[in-house]
Formats: sequence, structure tokens, C-alpha cells
Amino acid sequence: MQHARNRKKDIRMNSTEKKGIGERYLWKGVMVDEQDIHISLQDRGYVFGDGLYEVVRVYNGKLFGLKRHLDRLFQGAEIVKFNLHYTKEEFQSFFQQLVEENALHSGYVYMQLTRGDDGVRNHLFPACREQMPVLSGFAVHTPRNVEKIKAGTTAISVEDIRWKYCHVKTLNLIPNCMARYEAKKRGAAKAILVKDGIVTEEKSGSILIVQNGCILTHVENEDILPSTTKKILEALSEQEQIPFREDTFTLEELYAADEVIVADTNTECCAVLQVDGHLIGDGNPGPILKKLQKAYEAAIIAECGRAE
Amino acid sequence: MQHARNRKKDIRMNSTEKKGIGERYLWKGVMVDEQDIHISLQDRGYVFGDGLYEVVRVYNGKLFGLKRHLDRLFQGAEIVKFNLHYTKEEFQSFFQQLVEENALHSGYVYMQLTRGDDGVRNHLFPACREQMPVLSGFAVHTPRNVEKIKAGTTAISVEDIRWKYCHVKTLNLIPNCMARYEAKKRGAAKAILVKDGIVTEEKSGSILIVQNGCILTHVENEDILPSTTKKILEALSEQEQIPFREDTFTLEELYAADEVIVADTNTECCAVLQVDGHLIGDGNPGPILKKLQKAYEAAIIAECGRAE
Repeated sequence: MQHARNRKKDIRMNSTEKKGIGERYLWKGVMVDEQDIHISLQDRGYVFGDGLYEVVRVYNGKLFGLKRHLDRLFQGAEIVKFNLHYTKEEFQSFFQQLVEENALHSGYVYMQLTRGDDGVRNHLFPACREQMPVLSGFAVHTPRNVEKIKAGTTAISVEDIRWKYCHVKTLNLIPNCMARYEAKKRGAAKAILVKDGIVTEEKSGSILIVQNGCILTHVENEDILPSTTKKILEALSEQEQIPFREDTFTLEELYAADEVIVADTNTECCAVLQVDGHLIGDGNPGPILKKLQKAYEAAIIAECGRAE
Repeated sequence: MQHARNRKKDIRMNSTEKKGIGERYLWKGVMVDEQDIHISLQDRGYVFGDGLYEVVRVYNGKLFGLKRHLDRLFQGAEIVKFNLHYTKEEFQSFFQQLVEENALHSGYVYMQLTRGDDGVRNHLFPACREQMPVLSGFAVHTPRNVEKIKAGTTAISVEDIRWKYCHVKTLNLIPNCMARYEAKKRGAAKAILVKDGIVTEEKSGSILIVQNGCILTHVENEDILPSTTKKILEALSEQEQIPFREDTFTLEELYAADEVIVADTNTECCAVLQVDGHLIGDGNPGPILKKLQKAYEAAIIAECGRAE
């Protein structure tokens, strides 16, 4: 028994040191240690990527904007006929448990559901009411990187090669991974997706541009994910009296914009200073972005007490 | 220990009875029992569907057309910058071990590779040379269903909503699962995918039509998987002196075709007798399909000794 206990401790330490991941995981609705997770080779997540996920930021030990994330999860489930099984209140409690049992002060919580792990691999999934999802999640300790967010970032553009239902946050993410790889190869951090000449979004975030003092971002339709961060920015723009409009724009319009902003849960809102080598504006974070960042930080403090 | 052994046996029996799956699995290059598989929650297959797979049919205890499957796997890996790590000879040996250790006489072997399970979830995958894939596989006992193959099947058409690189056999399969679900809902077995009016393929197979004695099937490009079964049919058509042409055709042309054929590893080649309620030809398997089926069976016997 002594030997077994030591081995368990080793695994835990190793996992924590290597990954920044909290020791306590969510698995099928219960909080467990890593060694108690048993993913089936027949899990539809493993063989089809047949699942949905959400990532929620935690500041000062509190979940930021959780309601919007859960609303999106439920909307997406509807579209792909996915039985989430749990109520919004239960999901809220699962997120909360991941924060508490990992003593997560600053970082994020990742949660996913796959469409079951019963029976031999078969494209056909059961009718919605008969599905039993496999729920899992973990917490990652990673401080809010204010310096990086304020400094701005760089991007490349790549063809948007994803499937049709980009408004659903599914686990079918190879195109997103390939876009990120392409960005890295070309010396940038972000990948801006372009479909038939139109900018859709960043590979894991929203893209907003500033034209003549007005914020412009893609229309909410099947081509983009309904970004929770963008919705916050929309509300903050109204509050700050910055005109905000949803409309399509081309890559050329983006190159010529006064400001380009990338927005997602972990990046918050951040200036894109260079795209495909083109300098955006004067190559520095612009005044509208700075206003939004200030307002965003205030929104974090209002909801979580402190922006850390 | 007695208790542990009994429990192990229970798991095995349960798995075998419930799923038709063989007891011995491939896991990270080694043959193991089910309980020795430990998929990480950080496995890129589980969080991104970031992987490739192949399904190879087994007749009379012998793998059919394995070389073509491995060629496709290696071509696909190239496109998505995937390090397969093992040689074709090693893959051949893994497939062979799955057949032998499961005493598989008639059925199929499933094998997949995901792009690693190391480090915290991150869209960015390592450079090809630094990747270490997670290899897994299982065998399924399922007899060749000659009656079903000869009887023919039914299909519906659905919009092809997949991503751009359909020529790679990846684990991003939600659109395929949704197409299968839609077929079931509308009382059919197969789902024919249509992209901008053009028939691409079946959700997990090829579509061939017969027009004035000539077989027509989609051009090999990014829109379809390079089907191993179709390649066999192409060779058999030449042998049987049936004209065979790759060209695009519309759904209307398919409705009006003399014959419609669906082809994949497990279905072999099979008549589609009805599409969206439209009867194809006189609603019976046609003469060209019957010729191909005869030749296909002969090809199985030539390679595997017996078509069973």
C-alpha cells in the first residue's frame, strides 16, 4: 500500500509540474484524481471528435461570464442534436467545483462533453433523448498576462477551411490547429481566417476592426462562433459610446483599418499590430482598443472583485 | 487476487458480448487488454479530434487491400503534417497482430493515431519531427453480410457541410455522423453528400453511377476521400471492359442514372435502389453492379483464399 501511495503522489506531482493543470479533474459528473479517469477507446470524442466544449476564465477565484458560456453551449447542442443531460445549474456547479477543488485563483477552466462511449464505433448516434454524454474537465493555473495583452500581437491570414457550422463550439478542431501551426511557422501568434475574401474570425477568437472610429465585426451567422468576449465588448462599446456594427469586411479592408483587435476568453481584447507583414495603423495599440481594455478590466473587477 | 481475476474476466466477457469487439487491443504499439488502455484527457484526439484512422476488412483471417490503406494513411499524414512515427512494415505488423491475437476470421480492424498526449491542451502542435503519436486499434468480429450487399440499399441526399480537406481520413467526423443521423431519420441507410449541386461521395463511402453503360465517379481531389474500394472497382472495371470515367455529376443526373453504386470497405459495392424516394432504374440491382460484385468476390478470394 505504501508503494501504491507513493506512486500516486509521483503522478500528481509530475502532472502539476509539467502542465500547470490542477490535480482535481471532473469526470462523468464527479470530481476525481487523474488516475480515476477512464476514457473508452469507443468514446465518440476519441474516434469522431463528437463533442462540445467551453473554456471559462477565472479571475480572483471567480468565474467570469459563465452564463454566456453556458448559453452558447446549450445553443450549440441544439444545432448538432446533442443531449447535454445536465442543467445549467448543474454545469455551474461543476465549473465551481473545478475552481474550488483546485484552489484556482487565476487561470481557466476547460470542460467538454462527448456524445457517449457505449457500443462499438458507429457514425450513427442515438436519438437525442437516448444519449448519455461523457463529461470531463480540468483547471489550469495561468496568471492574467496583462503585459502581453497590452503590448499587442501579430497575425497572419489563412484560408478558412473549416466546415459549415462554425457557430457550434465542437471538438472537430484540426483546421484550427493547422491555422495555429501555420501562424507559428510564419512567425506570428494569431491566425486570421478568410473565407471567399471575407474575414470571418481568428482561429480561436473574434476579429474586430476600427474604421473611421467605428468598430466593425463579422455578422453573427454560421461562419463564426458566437463569441462571449465579443458580446462583452459590444456592451462596453455602447457604454463607451463607440459605434459598433456587424458587417462583412475584406482582408484588404483589414490591412487598411485604423485598428485591428483580437478577442477571446484568455486574450481578452488585444491589438493586432501586424498582419501578413502589413503594419496596422502606426503599429501601436490604438485609442479605441485602449478604451475597451480599460472598460474590460473594469467589467472583470465588477464581476470578480479583482482583475488578477 | 481471485476476486481481481474474476472481475477482469467479467469486463472482458461484457465487452465481447456487447460490442463484438475482440479482447485484445493495440495501445501505443503494444497489444494489451482493455483495462491497460489509458487515454489522457490531454490526448489531442480527445480534445481536437486531431488524428487519422484506417479500417481494413478481414476475410478468412486475412487482411484485404492493406497496402492501399497504408498508402492513403501516409498520403493524408503528409497533408496535415502528421508524424506517423512507425513504418509501413510496422503498421502491417500491428494490423496482423490485431487479427491474430483476436483470432479474427471475418470482420474488420480499426486503427487510429492521434497527434500526441503530452502537455496541456494547445491548438499548436509540435513540428512534425517532434510529434509522438498515440496509436490504438481494435478488431471487430462481424461476418460478411452477402445477402445485404446483394439486396441493395437506400439513400438520402444531404448538403456536404464538411471542411475543405476531405481527402484526408481524419477523426473530425461530426458532419459524417450528422449525415448518418439524418439518413436514419428519413428512413434510409446511406447519406449522399452534395456540394454546390455536385455529388461528392457517400458519408463514409464512394458513389458511382452508371450512365449509358459507363461508370462515372467524382474526380479525385480535395472534395473526396481517395477510396481504396473505388480503386479496386476501377481496376475490376478495366478487367471487365466496363468504361470507367472520373467526372463531376449532379444530383439530378444521379436520380436519372441507370444504376447507383455505393462502395466502401465493409459495404464492398452495393446497389442504391432509391435516393430521396426516387427509384433508380427499375429499382433492382443492375447488370453492371452484378458484374462488379462477382469480380470483387473473385478479387477477395484471390487475395484472401475465401470470401468469408
